[in-house]
Amino acid sequence: MTRFTKDDILQLEKQLRTNLINSLPGVRQANLIGTVSQQGEFNVAIFNSVMHIGAHPPYMGFMMRPVSVRRDTYLNIKSSGYFSINHVNRQMLQQAHQTSARYDYSEFEATGLTAEQSYLHPAPYVRESQVNIGLKFVEEKLIECNQTVLLIGEVIEIVIKDDLLSEDFIVQSAKEEAVAVNGLETYYAVSKLMQLPYAKPV
Amino acid sequence: MTRFTKDDILQLEKQLRTNLINSLPGVRQANLIGTVSQQGEFNVAIFNSVMHIGAHPPYMGFMMRPVSVRRDTYLNIKSSGYFSINHVNRQMLQQAHQTSARYDYSEFEATGLTAEQSYLHPAPYVRESQVNIGLKFVEEKLIECNQTVLLIGEVIEIVIKDDLLSEDFIVQSAKEEAVAVNGLETYYAVSKLMQLPYAKPV
Repeated sequence: MTRFTKDDILQLEKQLRTNLINSLPGVRQANLIGTVSQQGEFNVAIFNSVMHIGAHPPYMGFMMRPVSVRRDTYLNIKSSGYFSINHVNRQMLQQAHQTSARYDYSEFEATGLTAEQSYLHPAPYVRESQVNIGLKFVEEKLIECNQTVLLIGEVIEIVIKDDLLSEDFIVQSAKEEAVAVNGLETYYAVSKLMQLPYAKPV
Repeated sequence: MTRFTKDDILQLEKQLRTNLINSLPGVRQANLIGTVSQQGEFNVAIFNSVMHIGAHPPYMGFMMRPVSVRRDTYLNIKSSGYFSINHVNRQMLQQAHQTSARYDYSEFEATGLTAEQSYLHPAPYVRESQVNIGLKFVEEKLIECNQTVLLIGEVIEIVIKDDLLSEDFIVQSAKEEAVAVNGLETYYAVSKLMQLPYAKPV
């Protein structure tokens, strides 16, 4: 086993420390967050931090880095009140990754991903995704220890490719060819291992 | 495409709605959180909500359901000030899943997982995991819209199986045979697709 104490971690070269700490939580679904600016321009950016907040009522959230520099996604959510979450699959992976580059125009135009509009809210969906979720912004939490921000929305629409839900309404990630990511750049495919029953003491 | 509006979602049978909303964020690494009670008893429970908070200094967090009912993990973190995060791999999956059953004694004893102690903090590691992370509790955030809680800790120790880090210090999830989960019970294996370079405008 290799062991790192806090001092060992703090003394690591910065890029190595970033890689190590970013990959410690393990794999997570890659998602694209879609937003619209006050000028009506569509923005889309890749995130690995989308999370479940609650099912009744349905809430989801994601973490943003400190907003001390300009963050279009954050500004657009605050000004428009809405955002979308769109799953990344294998077919669109390179385009999705490319949204993390710094463009001074829409990432849709830059990457060739296709924006699609909903009748229910102004945030763009990504047509190439097989799961699109529309959310209304409801709450933000500033994390005091490092100024990151947790943004939370209420799910107001779900658009999902036919046959992607199981009989018991679980999104079938392997069938979707969903892509997971560990850290910021190492991408993984997933294959179903097993579905285990609700655990009871034996 | 199948489309659910907010009304459609609210009218779903409760278990179907739970399944749907829980699986919307996509796959996430399965992790075991280890804690110790004031009486010195070791607790371990499976979570799918472990997240990266920051790398400099290194912080990680996870979401807990409302603490309106007794939550040992929460109480133990608040009383002891420490917790551990331990990756789930294929070899230990069934035992890890079984920690979600309600036991009135230690889940280590109930499931056969092995507790291991650190010299640096009192929270137990899970020996069967190939990545163990020791954290000092630093902050909690109550999510007002549904009373869930985000708990954050500072990474004070990492114990990782030899050869599991790449040359650039990224945890190799496929080599680890890391297990991801979508929702609460559908488990996935991961296989590496590609590592993409830091994206720049083209």
